Amino acid sequence: MPARLPDGIHCAADYSRLAAGAIDAPTLAYIDGGSGEDRTLAANRAAFGRLGLVPRLLPDLRGAQTRLSLLGQELAHPILLAPVAYQALAHPRAEIETARGAAAAEACMACSTLSSASLEEVAAHAGPQRWFQLYFQPQRAATLDLVRRAEAAGYTALVVTLDAAIQAPSLRALRAGFRMPAGLRAANLADYPPTPPKSPAPLPGASRIFQAATRDATTWADLDWLAAQTSLPLLVKGVLHPEDAGLALDHGAAGLVVSNHGGRTIDGAPASLSVLPSIRQAVGPGCPLLLDGGVRSGAGAFKAIALGADAVMVGRLQVHALAVAGALGVAHMIRLLREELELCMAATGCRTLADIHDGLIHRFHDY
Amino acid sequence: MPARLPDGIHCAADYSRLAAGAIDAPTLAYIDGGSGEDRTLAANRAAFGRLGLVPRLLPDLRGAQTRLSLLGQELAHPILLAPVAYQALAHPRAEIETARGAAAAEACMACSTLSSASLEEVAAHAGPQRWFQLYFQPQRAATLDLVRRAEAAGYTALVVTLDAAIQAPSLRALRAGFRMPAGLRAANLADYPPTPPKSPAPLPGASRIFQAATRDATTWADLDWLAAQTSLPLLVKGVLHPEDAGLALDHGAAGLVVSNHGGRTIDGAPASLSVLPSIRQAVGPGCPLLLDGGVRSGAGAFKAIALGADAVMVGRLQVHALAVAGALGVAHMIRLLREELELCMAATGCRTLADIHDGLIHRFHDY
Amino acid sequence: MPARLPDGIHCAADYSRLAAGAIDAPTLAYIDGGSGEDRTLAANRAAFGRLGLVPRLLPDLRGAQTRLSLLGQELAHPILLAPVAYQALAHPRAEIETARGAAAAEACMACSTLSSASLEEVAAHAGPQRWFQLYFQPQRAATLDLVRRAEAAGYTALVVTLDAAIQAPSLRALRAGFRMPAGLRAANLADYPPTPPKSPAPLPGASRIFQAATRDATTWADLDWLAAQTSLPLLVKGVLHPEDAGLALDHGAAGLVVSNHGGRTIDGAPASLSVLPSIRQAVGPGCPLLLDGGVRSGAGAFKAIALGADAVMVGRLQVHALAVAGALGVAHMIRLLREELELCMAATGCRTLADIHDGLIHRFHDY
Amino acid sequence: MPARLPDGIHCAADYSRLAAGAIDAPTLAYIDGGSGEDRTLAANRAAFGRLGLVPRLLPDLRGAQTRLSLLGQELAHPILLAPVAYQALAHPRAEIETARGAAAAEACMACSTLSSASLEEVAAHAGPQRWFQLYFQPQRAATLDLVRRAEAAGYTALVVTLDAAIQAPSLRALRAGFRMPAGLRAANLADYPPTPPKSPAPLPGASRIFQAATRDATTWADLDWLAAQTSLPLLVKGVLHPEDAGLALDHGAAGLVVSNHGGRTIDGAPASLSVLPSIRQAVGPGCPLLLDGGVRSGAGAFKAIALGADAVMVGRLQVHALAVAGALGVAHMIRLLREELELCMAATGCRTLADIHDGLIHRFHDY
Repeated sequence: MPARLPDGIHCAADYSRLAAGAIDAPTLAYIDGGSGEDRTLAANRAAFGRLGLVPRLLPDLRGAQTRLSLLGQELAHPILLAPVAYQALAHPRAEIETARGAAAAEACMACSTLSSASLEEVAAHAGPQRWFQLYFQPQRAATLDLVRRAEAAGYTALVVTLDAAIQAPSLRALRAGFRMPAGLRAANLADYPPTPPKSPAPLPGASRIFQAATRDATTWADLDWLAAQTSLPLLVKGVLHPEDAGLALDHGAAGLVVSNHGGRTIDGAPASLSVLPSIRQAVGPGCPLLLDGGVRSGAGAFKAIALGADAVMVGRLQVHALAVAGALGVAHMIRLLREELELCMAATGCRTLADIHDGLIHRFHDY
Repeated sequence: MPARLPDGIHCAADYSRLAAGAIDAPTLAYIDGGSGEDRTLAANRAAFGRLGLVPRLLPDLRGAQTRLSLLGQELAHPILLAPVAYQALAHPRAEIETARGAAAAEACMACSTLSSASLEEVAAHAGPQRWFQLYFQPQRAATLDLVRRAEAAGYTALVVTLDAAIQAPSLRALRAGFRMPAGLRAANLADYPPTPPKSPAPLPGASRIFQAATRDATTWADLDWLAAQTSLPLLVKGVLHPEDAGLALDHGAAGLVVSNHGGRTIDGAPASLSVLPSIRQAVGPGCPLLLDGGVRSGAGAFKAIALGADAVMVGRLQVHALAVAGALGVAHMIRLLREELELCMAATGCRTLADIHDGLIHRFHDY
Repeated sequence: MPARLPDGIHCAADYSRLAAGAIDAPTLAYIDGGSGEDRTLAANRAAFGRLGLVPRLLPDLRGAQTRLSLLGQELAHPILLAPVAYQALAHPRAEIETARGAAAAEACMACSTLSSASLEEVAAHAGPQRWFQLYFQPQRAATLDLVRRAEAAGYTALVVTLDAAIQAPSLRALRAGFRMPAGLRAANLADYPPTPPKSPAPLPGASRIFQAATRDATTWADLDWLAAQTSLPLLVKGVLHPEDAGLALDHGAAGLVVSNHGGRTIDGAPASLSVLPSIRQAVGPGCPLLLDGGVRSGAGAFKAIALGADAVMVGRLQVHALAVAGALGVAHMIRLLREELELCMAATGCRTLADIHDGLIHRFHDY
Repeated sequence: MPARLPDGIHCAADYSRLAAGAIDAPTLAYIDGGSGEDRTLAANRAAFGRLGLVPRLLPDLRGAQTRLSLLGQELAHPILLAPVAYQALAHPRAEIETARGAAAAEACMACSTLSSASLEEVAAHAGPQRWFQLYFQPQRAATLDLVRRAEAAGYTALVVTLDAAIQAPSLRALRAGFRMPAGLRAANLADYPPTPPKSPAPLPGASRIFQAATRDATTWADLDWLAAQTSLPLLVKGVLHPEDAGLALDHGAAGLVVSNHGGRTIDGAPASLSVLPSIRQAVGPGCPLLLDGGVRSGAGAFKAIALGADAVMVGRLQVHALAVAGALGVAHMIRLLREELELCMAATGCRTLADIHDGLIHRFHDY
């Protein structure tokens, strides 16, 4: 870790303010942009901005803490690192730094299938709370091999991302002239057969889009199959519709991540926070439920928990902190988020995460 | 067609971004402006911006396609070219280029009564899906002659525009100093008696406005007459009120186009998309219903279809693409719109246009 | 009248755009500013901006016209000139030019008690529709003399302004350094005893504000008295509350003007248009009801009539046109407003003012 | 007092416009900033901006006045000075000037526990209406000594601030580089044992935030104890939740101040004005209820009273006036606020504060 933190960091979100000094502009456009005109990206943030919280006087906060149990695992706090691909774009040691930062901040980290460092390297630097994010591979053998490697490396859950089949390009990245660096590699996939590109020239008369969306398409039966292969709990990531929440649980998921992939799938998708209450209502109180998309502060974590999440994941902020200050930045960013959450809990008189509820939320737009 | 597409086109709407480099400023002000202060023009766009769509996980998209049957005609996709007058303002070969582009993109095109090229020339370059847009002429003989020529040239429907009697001037065009070029001609009308101007000096004590609005005014009886003259299906364009939808069908229309003439009639008219649901409700599920006004993306087409349209028409975007890259630009723009629509269908799990429905729409302002 | 109209006038509101070239900045700040931070002024305009109108197809407009009968008087159209004080600030010939312009445009004009030209001079140049705006004077003798002079000069109604007792200063005018020119005179009041200033140093311990508001305060009994002195119909101007509407009618008013004095009384007062429906509801369908505040276009007149007004008055636009082009400007501005109104009527299929109703109004914010 | 008022003061809020010329930028950032991103600070202001008031015609204002009885004390008007710490940041003579200004304007002033001048010095310059704001001290002996001193110095009520335990830092102040001047002292606390810092390095594994929030935490039992020590009435300041209003009254409070500490506690707290009606409803009509947060005009005072407050407190405006023109500025600012309030009362026909009610409020956003 570097010797010291950067100046000018007063809150976790300040890492995003400093990111432009640490990442070249086209790459930052790729990291920060959403699909299309960034409407879903903006909606993710706006949904948090519409909410406030109602302070209480003289709460008894003795014994207050942020612990939670999730999938049978004990977490020190509900702030997790979302799976983010190709972190070599942000730091030469990529996910290895991220893992060290997460470990230092007692944060559970989800390593991406498309990590720049191999899942085994990441595991070697990660803390005990580490999850592996799985993309279904064209061949089941490759998928299964990833699962076995994750099990062997001590990952304790699989985050199965199901919303990445359809991704509209980011106009921000395109206009900034971003191109994936030639040397960028998904270390985990190096030994598998190369994936055929999803967008080749279509058959004459056929739709390029529909062709890509149907070739090697994942199905709910694939999720059934996966659940049968491993004893690791499966978290389905990308849920935005209550019916999909039910389908995922029916097909083997142990929990869900409400997510629009950080506004990177289709522009116009709802804000994660906007649909969260309907998802919680659909799955009932006991189902592990996480959210990502728009969390830039501990107050954001507080609001998501109040609206039904058990925990939150942070994506872009993770990359910004990584780029600005490596492992130390990641750890510091998480600690700031945690303290911001604690401040919200203290202000509203919540001694535990279970005390956080919708009645503490203030809706600015209702006034 | 030119040898290559312009750089920097990442989505259909990018043609509008490039139009300022291809059309002089006063002419672009005329093309882009609406009536008055552009409030209806802005409302057309804003109505789409308020809506999003809800992605679904792991849809089965095998066999997905965008075909539709409209007025007994089979269309490859629901993106049509709206009738736009005087396309020589945008390209020297005018509608001939447009027709070639539309044919290449399998798009139905509506040729304007006020086209710069004659309807026969346009037909010679157009694909099999071609409609003729008809303005009633002061003399029935001229109107009938246009119909007979359209029939002879293989046009398969008549789009009868009824909302052009009242057009408030565009302040944007006036302030930009736009004047119709002296040489601009409506090729189709060259052989008919000249139309008397609608806005001469009024009779003493009479209203210039009411005088112009009543002289040679079209009536519903004219539509009855027209329907009796031709076996071509009639689409009435310009409907914004449910009662007018019913009247048009009562007087011979086979379908309707919900339209405010691209915000060019009276400033303050509702956005087309805002009134679409009430029009669909008035005419029932079977009536062919199109919409124009504010469609700048395939997502826009998706939203209009979800709210009740069978298909959409694009006006300004057509002219922008024509100006930027001629027939190739028009074809490319349509293909981009179609792929953007397909992406929305794939994201929401719609295999056909009939699967698109209001339940897939997300209303950002409700959150 | 000047020989020609200024360039660049495409709609009535364009006179406001040109006013800065014809009036010095501090004076324009005084004319254009409202009280306080201009919130009511802005609300007046915004209330119109929220509304649109729904065009109809192929209306039968034969015989369409804009006439109305008001207080037993026949008006060619429902656009009146509001009383505006001290028009010498805008033009050296002041209300004399305004009166000539109004007469040329067949508009009823209301001459202010505080006119720069005497009511007799104004009457000499005005058309047959001329009303006199009356402020109660400290002495009843002076008030009565004004009434007698107005009767003698052929004024056909008295507009009794009751909302001017409380006027908060205009911060815009104060910040622009505006001061009333030393030579500015209220010609009508030259021969009456000087009015004691309303804001002297207060009695020790007394409120300067309350003292000014109670000394010589007008009462409803004064209105009773006035009604008994003259056969001219009385229009009470300044009504914003339904109860005040009823009180005014109970005390002798023949009609009302819904007005917040152009946003010049107390900042925070409602927009005139916002309260208009509640006032119409309170007074019933037969009561003559006018509105001023925020009308800058014929569409504004259309909307006010749709929401319950019989006619509208224009204030600032009158002064702008006067400053820009004298009597010719005033006449031109009124004609443009009238034609804009006619265009709205033609677009919505209204042959008479009585055909204008709330069902033709589109509320943009409901979509 | 200085010989003259500054130029350019047309309303009370103009003192805030001039403050930048009288206070250095980092200090002004500290004074003006709220916690976090200033969202609650902005909400405080916005809540007032959404409201207007409905003028009435020809009210009878004879005998109008602004007096009120509060906690058995007679006040000339309902505009009080909120407790503001460390006024030496704004003026070298600090609260002594403020006290002189308040006395001159017949305003009740609340002297802060953290005043730069001692409470005895302040009392020597204050008028008869003076309250003391009390922070519970770590030792009850110190707390009690403060109470005895306040009693001895003639303070007539204690304002017990209970919302300061949780204060998020002001990003505005941090980014401006503000640091508390080394010499800044809380004069009242000079003789008590030094307070241990609330944010030391936490115990290993413990939360810095929760540790600070629980050490020496005030409890409702402390309020009971305080009420038993003194006959001065207690006003609990910082109430935002109806349940806390009830708790405070149950534990000895004689009245409440609805407050979010000027947006300085936790960012996202509701605007004071937004929760005021729910607090009034909870405590019933008889309970003394004040509000601070966002009052910058007499219209603000009017609105707060209409929504349930008996009186209002001004914080930042007090400091701005102090910095700009010392005691004279403070007195002038209060007088302007009072006259602005009187103008609102006169416009709406309220002869007394008791006549101000919700029916006179106009809600702009409902139109």
